[in-house]
Amino acid sequence: MFVLVNLKAYPCDGPAVARAVREVSEESGVRMAVAPQAAQLETIHDTGAETWAQHVSPVEQGSHTGSTLAEAVADAGAVGTLINHSERRLRLADIDGALSAADRADLETVVCANNPAQVGAAAALAPDAVAVEPPELIGGDVSVSTADPGVVKDAVDAATAVDEDVSVFCGAGVSTGSDVAAAGELGAEGVLLASGVAKADDPEAVLWDLVSEI
Amino acid sequence: MFVLVNLKAYPCDGPAVARAVREVSEESGVRMAVAPQAAQLETIHDTGAETWAQHVSPVEQGSHTGSTLAEAVADAGAVGTLINHSERRLRLADIDGALSAADRADLETVVCANNPAQVGAAAALAPDAVAVEPPELIGGDVSVSTADPGVVKDAVDAATAVDEDVSVFCGAGVSTGSDVAAAGELGAEGVLLASGVAKADDPEAVLWDLVSEI
Amino acid sequence: MFVLVNLKAYPCDGPAVARAVREVSEESGVRMAVAPQAAQLETIHDTGAETWAQHVSPVEQGSHTGSTLAEAVADAGAVGTLINHSERRLRLADIDGALSAADRADLETVVCANNPAQVGAAAALAPDAVAVEPPELIGGDVSVSTADPGVVKDAVDAATAVDEDVSVFCGAGVSTGSDVAAAGELGAEGVLLASGVAKADDPEAVLWDLVSEI
Amino acid sequence: MFVLVNLKAYPCDGPAVARAVREVSEESGVRMAVAPQAAQLETIHDTGAETWAQHVSPVEQGSHTGSTLAEAVADAGAVGTLINHSERRLRLADIDGALSAADRADLETVVCANNPAQVGAAAALAPDAVAVEPPELIGGDVSVSTADPGVVKDAVDAATAVDEDVSVFCGAGVSTGSDVAAAGELGAEGVLLASGVAKADDPEAVLWDLVSEI
Repeated sequence: MFVLVNLKAYPCDGPAVARAVREVSEESGVRMAVAPQAAQLETIHDTGAETWAQHVSPVEQGSHTGSTLAEAVADAGAVGTLINHSERRLRLADIDGALSAADRADLETVVCANNPAQVGAAAALAPDAVAVEPPELIGGDVSVSTADPGVVKDAVDAATAVDEDVSVFCGAGVSTGSDVAAAGELGAEGVLLASGVAKADDPEAVLWDLVSEI
Repeated sequence: MFVLVNLKAYPCDGPAVARAVREVSEESGVRMAVAPQAAQLETIHDTGAETWAQHVSPVEQGSHTGSTLAEAVADAGAVGTLINHSERRLRLADIDGALSAADRADLETVVCANNPAQVGAAAALAPDAVAVEPPELIGGDVSVSTADPGVVKDAVDAATAVDEDVSVFCGAGVSTGSDVAAAGELGAEGVLLASGVAKADDPEAVLWDLVSEI
Repeated sequence: MFVLVNLKAYPCDGPAVARAVREVSEESGVRMAVAPQAAQLETIHDTGAETWAQHVSPVEQGSHTGSTLAEAVADAGAVGTLINHSERRLRLADIDGALSAADRADLETVVCANNPAQVGAAAALAPDAVAVEPPELIGGDVSVSTADPGVVKDAVDAATAVDEDVSVFCGAGVSTGSDVAAAGELGAEGVLLASGVAKADDPEAVLWDLVSEI
Repeated sequence: MFVLVNLKAYPCDGPAVARAVREVSEESGVRMAVAPQAAQLETIHDTGAETWAQHVSPVEQGSHTGSTLAEAVADAGAVGTLINHSERRLRLADIDGALSAADRADLETVVCANNPAQVGAAAALAPDAVAVEPPELIGGDVSVSTADPGVVKDAVDAATAVDEDVSVFCGAGVSTGSDVAAAGELGAEGVLLASGVAKADDPEAVLWDLVSEI
């Protein structure tokens, strides 16, 4: 199980969250990472936590002002990147281009998608993983395991039918240890979290709860 | 074999091209259609030629000023639509949304894609067909059958691996009857043409050549 | 005063609304027009009502599949076009390009903008008019004359400071004859309406009310 | 005169360029800055050179995965930002939003624009400066002072007519000291450079030449 904490553009104490992630990951043995804004990658990487980017641009080195170059992200310490997050949707051709960019820079990749059909489409582009983010679960307090367990199972089936080597992550609806356990039983190999950890009064306590039933 | 003529935003005599398409289609028995700008759908439909849209928006009826509603396109006479043409690339989620819109309005669908991996991705969304448009062949005079026959074969394999019911069209590199024949031998069930027909001095002669080896 | 009715992508009877617009305009002497989807321009134009486009693309004739060519829109009967509607925001350079496209096709232009600063910016590109659409009034039942009269006055001042020849329209918050009268007193030379007319049980009655205090 | 060096996504030694910028700026007394990718802001800021962002997103803190938050850019050391660069064009409403974001984070702002009309539009949004980037000069070796001196003069007139407090920068066509001098005589208070400095074998020598006629 891989727990990936997306800091989005929250007004949170990123380094404090990252230190909690590093500590709980080391002590629990569960893989965890933090995905900050591009401008904060170095600061987060300096905490020793595994660091991911939130996005990379579908471009090669060159005249691309204001882009997020995969090589720059890797130089700043990222070892992986989200692509096509629901808050940063990309054109199909650009998901393909961003995956190529990530490959060039040796970044691990998780492509986000809305539903099982889109999960299958994303899997056809051969990322390391696809995260299913049902729109009705995004940003809410509803648990995927009680509200919509079928979507994770269907996403796993859709991805596997296209490419058995692509993992499926649960991209929404996870906030507790039993959610993580349920996601794992449904076939997910990772979970994405955001405000539940990033805005918590005690991120370390939340992280310990998340890994409590793995 | 299905021959689909895209009028793009060319300064051509659309109705004259459409009449040629209707006549050659009727006499040859080969299915043919014309895809004009949205504002010209009614005029083209009035010629009696099978009429397609170049694009539909991923929206339902409502507050969407400046969109291209699938229902409006169907009311104007279209029976199908291109989606994600290389000149009108869409986000993955919006390709999915445009396919849903087209389904609602009973429009046949051809999703365009750059390469076999993207063809596989598009096929996962269950359109009627996927058209492979290798960027190096778009808009050129190079024939797909001599320059890059592998790409059509690979596209057919990629689509079939994901969904056997999705046809593959050859979206570029076709300008003669032998190109059409070659595309068919490689597994394509349709071809997209544009300036080769739309800007021809004698569209009818070009269309007769296109069907000459089917 | 110019009353422009935007049909958006509503599931309404466009021709019936257009006939009402033509009749009330002719009888009242107040200029009125209807803006349908591109695919419905011909049908609306056939009613005899003044017809506008909802959007034109910032392109010239050529390889632009899925665009809305200004020339095609004019051929279908439009004499003007909205640009940069809040539901179809454009890049600054593309507003400029769409205005050039509209000029080429002899289309009158109304550029929409959120607030007085953006109205000034739009005026610098020399459209025929700018419509101010305060986000807090869009789609609501709140009247601009009671909720936010200052925004129309400020928009008129902002446009005039940049270019005295650019008219200002009130793009939201208008649903009754007294709203129209108030907009006129604040300096607006036109009003944009949408669902209030398009979805009315009796569009003609609504239109008569709109012109009742001019 | 302000010399702003845009590193774009070039495969260059950013810190070496930044050190040259700092040294030549300190010794010549001419204000200079470097604009790297967001992920490299901290590294560039650590060289002691004045650091700018290439872009900020039109958003506030919150759920905006993959955005470039103005506050994050400022925390990483940036004191200013480009907005609407020709390689990162924004919607009019988003230029306005990005300027608000930059103001919140106390970032100085330079909005780029294609031609004098768009310079006037950008000036109406009250940035600190507007940079005129005539498309025919971008990325070429043509000097603005010989090829198109009128465009800088017209841009200055357009900006001044709208807001006297907005400076004009010359955003393209500058590569030598005499170009900088010519831009200054035409009314420009700053110049944007990119590959001419970033990809130079000896950036320091190029920078010394740039300030040689100020």
